[in-house]
Amino acid sequence: MSTTRSTAAGKVLEVLSTFDRERRSQTLSEIAQRAGLALSTTHRVVTELAGWGALERGEDGSWYVGLRLWEIASGCPRSQILRDVALPFMQDLYEATHENIQLAVREGTELVFVERIAGHRSVELVTMVGSRFPVGSTGMGRVLLAYAPREVQEEVLESPLRAWTPYTVTDPRTLRAQLDRIRREQVFVSDRQLSESTVAVAAPVRIGRTGPVSAALGIVIAARGANRASGLREPLLRAAYGISDELGRRARTTA
Amino acid sequence: MSTTRSTAAGKVLEVLSTFDRERRSQTLSEIAQRAGLALSTTHRVVTELAGWGALERGEDGSWYVGLRLWEIASGCPRSQILRDVALPFMQDLYEATHENIQLAVREGTELVFVERIAGHRSVELVTMVGSRFPVGSTGMGRVLLAYAPREVQEEVLESPLRAWTPYTVTDPRTLRAQLDRIRREQVFVSDRQLSESTVAVAAPVRIGRTGPVSAALGIVIAARGANRASGLREPLLRAAYGISDELGRRARTTA
Repeated sequence: MSTTRSTAAGKVLEVLSTFDRERRSQTLSEIAQRAGLALSTTHRVVTELAGWGALERGEDGSWYVGLRLWEIASGCPRSQILRDVALPFMQDLYEATHENIQLAVREGTELVFVERIAGHRSVELVTMVGSRFPVGSTGMGRVLLAYAPREVQEEVLESPLRAWTPYTVTDPRTLRAQLDRIRREQVFVSDRQLSESTVAVAAPVRIGRTGPVSAALGIVIAARGANRASGLREPLLRAAYGISDELGRRARTTA
Repeated sequence: MSTTRSTAAGKVLEVLSTFDRERRSQTLSEIAQRAGLALSTTHRVVTELAGWGALERGEDGSWYVGLRLWEIASGCPRSQILRDVALPFMQDLYEATHENIQLAVREGTELVFVERIAGHRSVELVTMVGSRFPVGSTGMGRVLLAYAPREVQEEVLESPLRAWTPYTVTDPRTLRAQLDRIRREQVFVSDRQLSESTVAVAAPVRIGRTGPVSAALGIVIAARGANRASGLREPLLRAAYGISDELGRRARTTA
């Protein structure tokens, strides 16, 4: 960040990066403070961004991300485009289960949720689309970690693992054994690792049936219904294969 | 655009705006050409954007929108946040119909699709999430137009209306009468106006039951099944009311 700070382009990026899913609406001085810029500079950059549609102003005078920026970002292959391919399969899975169906990708040692389908009957989750979690913390994250480059795995295994619940695996050796099992079995049941109220079943999504792992697909159910988890392995794997095949087909078409 | 062109911040915006849903992947020279910038300038800006994660580079050397930009944009209230509120209702509607369920907002005289739910059994559409259409062209657009400020309506009615199909209404007086009917009946059936193979049923989404119209909700079905369209009015309206109530509730909570 600091390397780009001095340039005008860097200031644009500093201002934009003060916004995220948790900070959707900010006053000018909040933006200035978070971006570490003078108020006058912030005002100039925000005005420029607003003129272009990247930021919009609410009736209360606060600023939020504009539709124009979202339109550009909706071409992001690793989130929106992946999601478009996955959606019909997620849809089938939702309809068969009425549970939360999630799609996530790995970014370094974190996972980012790129899509969730949930209905009125699905259990409430702590995660949300666009939010990040340490890759070791969730069932979907561990699936992504199992197929990550060796150095990413070591970085996670060598750092302290946060105990989100009394059940969270924090011992690196146990986690390492889990990663082995994921690679063998393809499907992983994550029991109350992130929240005491939820159990996740997760599987890898590849580009083609044998290509690199590009995402994780998961079903999250209430922990009190956890006995249903193993029955979800089969439909989850089928959906993950369906997405993988379609991604493989598209990769061959555009290559 | 030309007013910001000369500044470094303007160049960042110029480069970003060469990307959209139809142009997801571009070479450096394509970006330079579309942004109207020198290749060396483009290289510098792209490198800066890549360092920050707003752009990423594919294995073939081409550039695309990075996950970081998508994460920021996912806080956009008029698309992603609206969509999060609408999704469970869209979900119910999808499950009851297995047709395309769409959500769109108005931006000037255009509409932008912010969400679509579709399964393997839904008819294929020409529209997609993140894409724009003239607000007069589609059923959902006409619903948004019916509740747009008078000057937006006049601008659309005074411009030539494109005939997408032999059925498209291009006579301003007929369109004006349609807008009146939409305001009276709340639900609008748009018969093969954008494509000969589809019929849309659309309804307004408000902030609260009587608040301003913030979006349009639509079901798009195959034209050969158009006799089912009127049966969709009631469930569509129910879903639109559900979303409106929830948006109203949230607006009161955060006010």
